[in-house]
Amino acid sequence: MRDPLHIAVVGVTGYTGMELARLLLKHPSAKSLQFYVRETNGAKCLAQLFPQFRGRGDAALHTLSIEAITESAAGTAFLAIPHEASAEIAPKLLQAGLRVIDLSGAFRFRSGETFTSWYKLPAPPAQYLEHAVYGLPELFADALPAARLVANPGCYSTSVILGLRPLCDAGWVAAGQSVVCDCKSGATGAGKDPKRDLQFAEVDENFRAYNLFSHRHTPEILDHTGLPESQLVFTTHLLPLARGILSTIYVSLAQPQTAQAVEQLFRKFYADRPMVRIWSAGTLPEVQHVAHTNFCDIGFALDKTGQRLIIVSCLDNLGKGAAGQAVQNFNLMNEIEEQTGLL
Amino acid sequence: MRDPLHIAVVGVTGYTGMELARLLLKHPSAKSLQFYVRETNGAKCLAQLFPQFRGRGDAALHTLSIEAITESAAGTAFLAIPHEASAEIAPKLLQAGLRVIDLSGAFRFRSGETFTSWYKLPAPPAQYLEHAVYGLPELFADALPAARLVANPGCYSTSVILGLRPLCDAGWVAAGQSVVCDCKSGATGAGKDPKRDLQFAEVDENFRAYNLFSHRHTPEILDHTGLPESQLVFTTHLLPLARGILSTIYVSLAQPQTAQAVEQLFRKFYADRPMVRIWSAGTLPEVQHVAHTNFCDIGFALDKTGQRLIIVSCLDNLGKGAAGQAVQNFNLMNEIEEQTGLL
Amino acid sequence: MRDPLHIAVVGVTGYTGMELARLLLKHPSAKSLQFYVRETNGAKCLAQLFPQFRGRGDAALHTLSIEAITESAAGTAFLAIPHEASAEIAPKLLQAGLRVIDLSGAFRFRSGETFTSWYKLPAPPAQYLEHAVYGLPELFADALPAARLVANPGCYSTSVILGLRPLCDAGWVAAGQSVVCDCKSGATGAGKDPKRDLQFAEVDENFRAYNLFSHRHTPEILDHTGLPESQLVFTTHLLPLARGILSTIYVSLAQPQTAQAVEQLFRKFYADRPMVRIWSAGTLPEVQHVAHTNFCDIGFALDKTGQRLIIVSCLDNLGKGAAGQAVQNFNLMNEIEEQTGLL
Amino acid sequence: MRDPLHIAVVGVTGYTGMELARLLLKHPSAKSLQFYVRETNGAKCLAQLFPQFRGRGDAALHTLSIEAITESAAGTAFLAIPHEASAEIAPKLLQAGLRVIDLSGAFRFRSGETFTSWYKLPAPPAQYLEHAVYGLPELFADALPAARLVANPGCYSTSVILGLRPLCDAGWVAAGQSVVCDCKSGATGAGKDPKRDLQFAEVDENFRAYNLFSHRHTPEILDHTGLPESQLVFTTHLLPLARGILSTIYVSLAQPQTAQAVEQLFRKFYADRPMVRIWSAGTLPEVQHVAHTNFCDIGFALDKTGQRLIIVSCLDNLGKGAAGQAVQNFNLMNEIEEQTGLL
Repeated sequence: MRDPLHIAVVGVTGYTGMELARLLLKHPSAKSLQFYVRETNGAKCLAQLFPQFRGRGDAALHTLSIEAITESAAGTAFLAIPHEASAEIAPKLLQAGLRVIDLSGAFRFRSGETFTSWYKLPAPPAQYLEHAVYGLPELFADALPAARLVANPGCYSTSVILGLRPLCDAGWVAAGQSVVCDCKSGATGAGKDPKRDLQFAEVDENFRAYNLFSHRHTPEILDHTGLPESQLVFTTHLLPLARGILSTIYVSLAQPQTAQAVEQLFRKFYADRPMVRIWSAGTLPEVQHVAHTNFCDIGFALDKTGQRLIIVSCLDNLGKGAAGQAVQNFNLMNEIEEQTGLL
Repeated sequence: MRDPLHIAVVGVTGYTGMELARLLLKHPSAKSLQFYVRETNGAKCLAQLFPQFRGRGDAALHTLSIEAITESAAGTAFLAIPHEASAEIAPKLLQAGLRVIDLSGAFRFRSGETFTSWYKLPAPPAQYLEHAVYGLPELFADALPAARLVANPGCYSTSVILGLRPLCDAGWVAAGQSVVCDCKSGATGAGKDPKRDLQFAEVDENFRAYNLFSHRHTPEILDHTGLPESQLVFTTHLLPLARGILSTIYVSLAQPQTAQAVEQLFRKFYADRPMVRIWSAGTLPEVQHVAHTNFCDIGFALDKTGQRLIIVSCLDNLGKGAAGQAVQNFNLMNEIEEQTGLL
Repeated sequence: MRDPLHIAVVGVTGYTGMELARLLLKHPSAKSLQFYVRETNGAKCLAQLFPQFRGRGDAALHTLSIEAITESAAGTAFLAIPHEASAEIAPKLLQAGLRVIDLSGAFRFRSGETFTSWYKLPAPPAQYLEHAVYGLPELFADALPAARLVANPGCYSTSVILGLRPLCDAGWVAAGQSVVCDCKSGATGAGKDPKRDLQFAEVDENFRAYNLFSHRHTPEILDHTGLPESQLVFTTHLLPLARGILSTIYVSLAQPQTAQAVEQLFRKFYADRPMVRIWSAGTLPEVQHVAHTNFCDIGFALDKTGQRLIIVSCLDNLGKGAAGQAVQNFNLMNEIEEQTGLL
Repeated sequence: MRDPLHIAVVGVTGYTGMELARLLLKHPSAKSLQFYVRETNGAKCLAQLFPQFRGRGDAALHTLSIEAITESAAGTAFLAIPHEASAEIAPKLLQAGLRVIDLSGAFRFRSGETFTSWYKLPAPPAQYLEHAVYGLPELFADALPAARLVANPGCYSTSVILGLRPLCDAGWVAAGQSVVCDCKSGATGAGKDPKRDLQFAEVDENFRAYNLFSHRHTPEILDHTGLPESQLVFTTHLLPLARGILSTIYVSLAQPQTAQAVEQLFRKFYADRPMVRIWSAGTLPEVQHVAHTNFCDIGFALDKTGQRLIIVSCLDNLGKGAAGQAVQNFNLMNEIEEQTGLL
């Protein structure tokens, strides 16, 4: 029987992997952390990849090998690798008895067709998709203790679903009216591989929209808000900053509401969920309030008719949008207090 | 009879005034440029305020005096001063026979009540409001040669109106569906007076929404798109960059359209308007394409149903959004080629 | 007898105060933290000033009163207030039996004349200056357990002194040759009060030198390197980023050395000092390696003659350059492990 | 006989090429501009590479071919291509009777050995090196009208040589004392090819030194200041901004001087050189004063002994540091007023 607090981290060369390493290195319950990479580029330890880490472990880097992991004491594997690599590796680790928290998109959908259609990649076998838990703890905390495979959500999806779900569940969203999600993200969301349009001088003093009507996070939002595809408009933009997502979400309400009622709805929905912070009517969260944290901050503005509502939902794309949320899932899977290692 | 090519610039200490000075100093038709400021802070010439200008004139700064201007040869005055100062000064200059291009909000509305309600300031006398021309040359070029008073539009308003007007005029906007204008601007749009929330460390690595349902540019957009107030949702955000606005505009179409038809509509509408550049279907403008120019770039994306349209409208808030547009108005007032001094 | 682990923080509205609050809120030994401000601006708790802190205490803010502090259980006061305010308040708190860690410049010099000459302010009474410990733990750790008043060093001074001291102590610096310290800092170093030249658009895409031959940190560097004033050239520049200092220090060596010998000298000097990280020959630290940490990272390059040495010394101006160092001092004063609460 | 005002630009896909195109497109004397690229990546015109240019020519892009250029009417070729490509192409164009302005390092040195030793590339034939004019117009304006081949200087070299040369020529630099040149550049200086350490998130909020004691611009500085290698220390750093270089240069003076005398020396040296602007004692240029210009701004500070001098020299690395300077050279080669097309 594997101890799930013994941890293997697979993929630590990107920004998400770096943040994951940072969080796990200071996590009080994490045991015998082992780091695996697909290519070492000569780096022998974490601190050679990220000098930030010097003096905090200087943990060794291992070349990825399924055998090495399954022969180790690891009970939980975090995967911060490309979709296709996760699709291949996760089943092998599960078969060897590890629990897997996957940060790619490979296991986020019940339907393999959805994955293939949006990611243009072969889907993992259906048995894994069926049993994967969508790792948005504010919605699926109850399923986490028994989960073997957790599919960590997309960064944009997390900010949008958390902003919309209370309204959807309450039946407040007017039918037949577009729900517009205008999302903006910092540049670490695009990963660390060198690309010309992510060079400093192409992002600095610039701002652009991208992937209109075609962003891969769309099906996650549809699945977990229950909105029909015809009602959702989801747009993404690149901000000239490193970390943070701010989503401005426009909802027409079925019935007029007061600001008090809106605030109450959100506070009640997230009453026991410490990593979502609701802002009072008249105030709004900003990227700087959530950068380097695992919080998702939600504020709103309601027009004088009480029928047009704007939700502002903010998080750190590497924190609550990726690595932080993975650790939050890990905590809940192991019935450790949810915020452990995240404050 | 005053020569309208003799120019007085009033207010050159802010970012808009600086840009105006920069453009006029190299304008081939501008004569005997005189610069006036309300407070000199000891600066004796433009280059002491803005060392960028050294070697390009070292023009003297005069303390603002109506007499000095009216006794000078100036035939046209540009006002880059606060709303209340414009409201007071513009009538005096008009009475003395000058033509006025005002960059404040004081003369943008036919109705004094609209101004007072949104700006919380006394409105200028009705006779001036009635005769002011709204200085958006793509819509009102014909009225400019005879104009005595031109009210230069707001920066956000320019980007939104230019993006929406072809659709509104064509009757393509579905009735009863919100038109969402999610706008983002660089920090020079907020002016140069020191404010805590515009200090470097409050804007850098940050992004925030502000003035939801209450931004002063709202009534300009309503006036010049013809949309009912209940249909317009206009939101503004602060980008961590100096210059540029990108507006993402969401429109539900009354009838399904093809991308070709949308592109055609925009190309036709702006066929003779060189400062609006239409982007082909499948491509989108970015802030870097318009920064330091007088262009407004417009692109779009249409979903597969042909009924949900996203317009992306970009400009430089100090260029086409303020000083550049003022110079474009000046050109057309004087029947000079529209782009003169702006390329 | 006061318990020094009971803490009063005076001044939390600036960037240093915010960082201090952030560090102390998660410090495992800090007891009954109380926050005092000179002006509340209506904020009732820390989270109203800094929404980042929501969910991590929502600690109350008290209006500063010497009585309130001295009547409380506080045994240690951190002062993050202006020089003149510290000069007035610190003696009163000391008389009431508290230990004081002052982050201003008021108590950094043995000589009141030095303070007055550089800060243009009256000096605190000589008895306090004489007994104050200069809070650079890498040099004065032994004096900290008994210290009543600790003068936390300047941010630039810390980076320069740590970079030069091993060379000075070893007698390696060539006499009569300038030691050039070319230092660059992020914008939080200039504080939070609104100033025109610290507005976003004046710092963004800009870089400038300031206070040449006149920066107040000069006398600290002279005092703690022992260099004659005629030999030190210390220059400061403003970087377009929020947090971080990088000092490039140019030293002519009295005798040729090898890179190995230089590295060895630094490693030996800081052998037991975990918050200074020495970089191997051929590698150099960057601002991103120390931002949001309490480390000072030191690297170097030696030319082929072995006589011209460049030291690169990096730290976070709010971390090791201010609040982090204050907490490090607190730890050592209380014989707690030095890095507690700082990793 | 070729008309030197007919221009071929070779290499327009990088930042320098883009800036060159921008300047030449609006240059009043440039005739029949033709643009050549080594790889088109499918772009058929300049505006497809750089949408900024739309509406200002939509000039066609040609695949580079020596024949195409030599068969065209072109009389002058600008080369904005890698060193090895220039080394190969320039001789062929010269033989065909074109004049060449080369922006690479290939022809900057009299000695082929110097080139090979610093660039690790074979040197062009000696006959070309001997006749190339080093294109720093403030020093070599007289040689430009007759020049067939102009080697445009490096960006850092330009800022340092212009800052030091008046002092060197006057014999003011103290012998045997290091002259420290601490230089900082924006990210466009590193070119447009995707590299991991130039990705946005690696430059943003970061600052680093690089190439200590090994930067390729070193031999240019030695050649044109006349300083012995043992006296020059030249260091480069990467700023988190797009455009601009600021060099802080530390000089020990042989004799004490007054600030007035220093200012006078610089004003006199550059009296007829409009693109160098001298700042008065007590004021200093900043990157924002020269960005998007062809000026080199020079200021200074002198300590109270009158023997330690700090020069601050600023320019735009794409302007005076590259493309702007190339156009300035073109003007002088053709006896056109020096600032034509550059204001």
